[in-house]
Amino acid sequence: MHTIDLKNTNLRTDLVIDEISNNEAKELGAYPRVVIETKNTKLEEIEVTEELEERLHKKVGYYSTVTFQDVTDKNNFKDVEDVMIKALKFMYEKIQLKDEGKVLVVGLGNENSTPDSLGPKAIDQVLVTRHLFLLGDVEEGYRSTASFKPSVTGATGIETKDLIEAVKDKVNPDLIIVIDALATNSIERLNKTIQVSTSGISPGSGIGNDRVEISEKTLGIPVLAIGIPTVVDATTIVQNTLQLLLKQISYKLSNQDNDKLKLVPANKQDYHKHQGELTDSQKEDVLGMVGLLSDTEQKELLLEVLLPVNYNLMVTPKEIDYIMDKLSLLLGNAINKSLHTHFNPTN
Amino acid sequence: MHTIDLKNTNLRTDLVIDEISNNEAKELGAYPRVVIETKNTKLEEIEVTEELEERLHKKVGYYSTVTFQDVTDKNNFKDVEDVMIKALKFMYEKIQLKDEGKVLVVGLGNENSTPDSLGPKAIDQVLVTRHLFLLGDVEEGYRSTASFKPSVTGATGIETKDLIEAVKDKVNPDLIIVIDALATNSIERLNKTIQVSTSGISPGSGIGNDRVEISEKTLGIPVLAIGIPTVVDATTIVQNTLQLLLKQISYKLSNQDNDKLKLVPANKQDYHKHQGELTDSQKEDVLGMVGLLSDTEQKELLLEVLLPVNYNLMVTPKEIDYIMDKLSLLLGNAINKSLHTHFNPTN
Amino acid sequence: MHTIDLKNTNLRTDLVIDEISNNEAKELGAYPRVVIETKNTKLEEIEVTEELEERLHKKVGYYSTVTFQDVTDKNNFKDVEDVMIKALKFMYEKIQLKDEGKVLVVGLGNENSTPDSLGPKAIDQVLVTRHLFLLGDVEEGYRSTASFKPSVTGATGIETKDLIEAVKDKVNPDLIIVIDALATNSIERLNKTIQVSTSGISPGSGIGNDRVEISEKTLGIPVLAIGIPTVVDATTIVQNTLQLLLKQISYKLSNQDNDKLKLVPANKQDYHKHQGELTDSQKEDVLGMVGLLSDTEQKELLLEVLLPVNYNLMVTPKEIDYIMDKLSLLLGNAINKSLHTHFNPTN
Amino acid sequence: MHTIDLKNTNLRTDLVIDEISNNEAKELGAYPRVVIETKNTKLEEIEVTEELEERLHKKVGYYSTVTFQDVTDKNNFKDVEDVMIKALKFMYEKIQLKDEGKVLVVGLGNENSTPDSLGPKAIDQVLVTRHLFLLGDVEEGYRSTASFKPSVTGATGIETKDLIEAVKDKVNPDLIIVIDALATNSIERLNKTIQVSTSGISPGSGIGNDRVEISEKTLGIPVLAIGIPTVVDATTIVQNTLQLLLKQISYKLSNQDNDKLKLVPANKQDYHKHQGELTDSQKEDVLGMVGLLSDTEQKELLLEVLLPVNYNLMVTPKEIDYIMDKLSLLLGNAINKSLHTHFNPTN
Repeated sequence: MHTIDLKNTNLRTDLVIDEISNNEAKELGAYPRVVIETKNTKLEEIEVTEELEERLHKKVGYYSTVTFQDVTDKNNFKDVEDVMIKALKFMYEKIQLKDEGKVLVVGLGNENSTPDSLGPKAIDQVLVTRHLFLLGDVEEGYRSTASFKPSVTGATGIETKDLIEAVKDKVNPDLIIVIDALATNSIERLNKTIQVSTSGISPGSGIGNDRVEISEKTLGIPVLAIGIPTVVDATTIVQNTLQLLLKQISYKLSNQDNDKLKLVPANKQDYHKHQGELTDSQKEDVLGMVGLLSDTEQKELLLEVLLPVNYNLMVTPKEIDYIMDKLSLLLGNAINKSLHTHFNPTN
Repeated sequence: MHTIDLKNTNLRTDLVIDEISNNEAKELGAYPRVVIETKNTKLEEIEVTEELEERLHKKVGYYSTVTFQDVTDKNNFKDVEDVMIKALKFMYEKIQLKDEGKVLVVGLGNENSTPDSLGPKAIDQVLVTRHLFLLGDVEEGYRSTASFKPSVTGATGIETKDLIEAVKDKVNPDLIIVIDALATNSIERLNKTIQVSTSGISPGSGIGNDRVEISEKTLGIPVLAIGIPTVVDATTIVQNTLQLLLKQISYKLSNQDNDKLKLVPANKQDYHKHQGELTDSQKEDVLGMVGLLSDTEQKELLLEVLLPVNYNLMVTPKEIDYIMDKLSLLLGNAINKSLHTHFNPTN
Repeated sequence: MHTIDLKNTNLRTDLVIDEISNNEAKELGAYPRVVIETKNTKLEEIEVTEELEERLHKKVGYYSTVTFQDVTDKNNFKDVEDVMIKALKFMYEKIQLKDEGKVLVVGLGNENSTPDSLGPKAIDQVLVTRHLFLLGDVEEGYRSTASFKPSVTGATGIETKDLIEAVKDKVNPDLIIVIDALATNSIERLNKTIQVSTSGISPGSGIGNDRVEISEKTLGIPVLAIGIPTVVDATTIVQNTLQLLLKQISYKLSNQDNDKLKLVPANKQDYHKHQGELTDSQKEDVLGMVGLLSDTEQKELLLEVLLPVNYNLMVTPKEIDYIMDKLSLLLGNAINKSLHTHFNPTN
Repeated sequence: MHTIDLKNTNLRTDLVIDEISNNEAKELGAYPRVVIETKNTKLEEIEVTEELEERLHKKVGYYSTVTFQDVTDKNNFKDVEDVMIKALKFMYEKIQLKDEGKVLVVGLGNENSTPDSLGPKAIDQVLVTRHLFLLGDVEEGYRSTASFKPSVTGATGIETKDLIEAVKDKVNPDLIIVIDALATNSIERLNKTIQVSTSGISPGSGIGNDRVEISEKTLGIPVLAIGIPTVVDATTIVQNTLQLLLKQISYKLSNQDNDKLKLVPANKQDYHKHQGELTDSQKEDVLGMVGLLSDTEQKELLLEVLLPVNYNLMVTPKEIDYIMDKLSLLLGNAINKSLHTHFNPTN
């Protein structure tokens, strides 16, 4: 029944952690390692080896995932920034970036489209020093950094990877950091996850305009991709919600004799971390044949419903302007503080 | 089971047409009258009488609804603008606005939040003449207009209705036009419907910050509210999709012997206007007990799932910046051309 | 010869310190009192009494003037902010603002015109609490504040003073603080002076669109006007330069036997604080009859030259975007910290 | 006396017409040819030959100058756009751009600094088609165009010329069009002149940050530079005004027996096109020794006055935001309509 061509859909996610969360992935033993865990922030690392590559549909490389809650909270912000600085420094070690290594920071995306403006807005926060190095005019504790906003192919007529390659050839950096807004397969990660990886990125891949990959393979030097999911498609929202419905009912069944819970209003009962699962028969009672499908099958079915009527919208939360301000500032701070040992922010 | 308190939820919609579309509403015989219908644009009118008021949960008044497809298309844009001018002129007649009647145009919402910036952005397109009238410096064919952006209570500390009332008392207009971004109960209306009504508006109601109503009742003079739904909540997306799933399956069953259709790929089959419906037993097969719930019960159930985990996001399409540019220009044009007979746009 | 009608010109300045600096003013014994003086920042106060009012062409009231150097320097910024907080607190004492006194902060000017955007941009930095007080939801150490951007009459069709009066009547504040961009009679004050006064303000007066005064006299409650000169006219630039030329030549003549100075290149010799003056005969040698005119006469002559050819441009430095970001942040910080004893800025 | 080092000053202008207007230049017989003259718009052309190069301090090449009055007037706007389209087409002929010739349009300058944002803002109006040509998806009447915003070296750490060269090597255009904001030596040209030349450009040269030249010589393919002066320095304002003062007095002396003129108020008498000149003795009477200096000597003297006290501000008119909107739209339109024969603007 579900013969829809997956190549034409948005089923793919940009986050390794989305794949890792799949039931299928768990069976592969592909578990990320928790490196840091604070009250509201967590840093997990995983290496996608050649064996894992095909099965996870994610490219070979190191992946760090910082997950957090509301970054518009002042204390959370500081916490996430600190973890992010560490995540970047770990990556610099892995790719053996030297103290005097030169860096080019590239902000992908469209400055005029709020949910796609993460890259360019972060670039506005990045300290550049390369021109001062050429003048011999830089104190200790800083390295040579340059930055660049390639905009999007629809606005320039030029393939983004070609623009970056051209600039790379002039600037001769030892590392390229690319920043981009991503899509996610999971509502809970939306604007609440930062992925840093050595595997490169395909600009616009999350939002349906797949372009030529930007990676060590295509550019010949290490590429560190920093991505934050800022959009999600309707299919994901529906499929996630159906799973939550099953989980909530399982939670209720498990707790039906818990008298204390009866005092808590239904819409305050956080069933989120409940681990039990309904039986297939129970799932069928609740959601019919849809309840019996696997995650992937559900998504395929929903896509088949939404695509013909053009309702598989890519959406973003209504607070996106404010969130982008915070996230771009956070990335800029973390990049500056991780690259320059003596960095001292100005007001 | 579904005892959730509806007053605390986002179940309410701002669009009369959303209610009219409900099964419940149809039974009341509350059908809008189609006034204009072009290829891609439709103008429908309905009067909510006192009898209908309680049942539809919409206030007494005239409601015009302009529905359209992609307004970023140049030809569509012109088409919708023309229909919108007519819709406004019909309303001016209904409220008996005289040729020399003075108008105050108010753009509700937050300029710094893209999906909420419709009102202020439209104001930037509105021609003001009141100060020139005070100087005696206006040619034939123009009427006295003033405009005003009250921003939002969170930014001013002042109730929006109080600000408007204060300005009204100084300006003494014969009509207040308020423009606001709304929420909708239906994905298909998102950025594709304009509602004009004489019943007033509660700023922020669509996006969960319900404020004091702005209406003839509270302000003492006619108020024309122009609203466009720019956000939708996750619950709506899920519930709409489940309904579409049932409709699609009904369509497939009805057409299973149609050999021609077998040649059309599943994701190209526009089942949207299919009228048949599954039997209850079929609905249960597909979606279990969820399939047997009414629209409202499904929404209540889904809210109960999403609220405790804070995932009932209000979202907007990722292209919102571009869409807001177009819609605010369209409203500005329509207001100018409907208010001033000699209006001649400058470049 | 100089019979030009001064009422039609831009001769007027918004800064009391500009008038005080005139030769004519000095003769009146109208000297400001230096209250604070740090390395780069100075706070001066003067009271314009009824006797002084007519002669200085400035309204009765207290005037504080903060003068400073480059506010884009991080340390200077902090220094000026501290002095500005003190300047505001002194004024609150003078107008006897109580701890529980309610404040309405109004940002005059046009958000879409960079040199005129100081007021609205500062409002974006101002903490509002009034709506929280109405909910009873505010901790110790905060007072009730509301804010408001009236935009400009050309954009609203409404007299700015009328808008403010209307809002005042609703909000019932004990003090109105209005912020506006001003014009100056002196290049050296451009973006380097903040004036705080109890005498009110006429929006747009500095930039040639004189509107109804906003003051205690017109509004019936204390009004504190905060202004920063962001524009200057060509006449001022020329007249200031001619005076500097005379001063520089006087400096050179006084120092012609100073052998050390001969080693300093001409364009490094800071003659700015030189006190001597040329004789009339020397002035005539250098600048002919123009050299013999008083400051006011020179301005009148230059206006007569520039007005007929429309070259008496109001101009602003090319770095104005960056400067406005800094100055609006500084004013927002100073207002918040002076109004709320427990104010704790978020990131 | 005036031994100031000119290399350290802003004496240089970006406009050939500024040099041509000098008394010195007139003696060289370097007169531009008027090609088009309408009521408010004029197109002049001049070729700077090798002989002229050194004397005019302008590089060899063709220069077209479009001069106009207020471009914020709707009719003027259309008029200037039409002339500008012709000016561009003449240049395409001179550099023998073929119908199928590919073009790269580059917008120099800093998007975040209003008076320097002309280039990037114009790019936002430029139609790009190169990516569609690569897909084979373009109708008749369009040529391959790409665009690019290199930002400024202070923001990227990369020499602008290097960025353009890198992109050129990838895109292989037949022509590069660069757009930049300039400085001028003449108040009357400010925002009222467009220069198009084949001689290249040095980004930031007008505003004191001279960078490596962008030209056919440095890039190896034809470069068309489009520049509009948006800033002027204080020295220019003063020197221009002193010249106007002398001209006005000459005009008055010539007309002292003209009884009609006595009825016209001084500030309405447009002496601008008066051709007579004062004698040296008269100049000395009016402006002393300053009146006897040549244009260049006056500028040197004024620089010597303003530089030590840091008052040689580069300034821009206070209406710059609005003017930049108009001028960038005008350039975008003219580029699109001159490059594509079938260009049909969308709304």
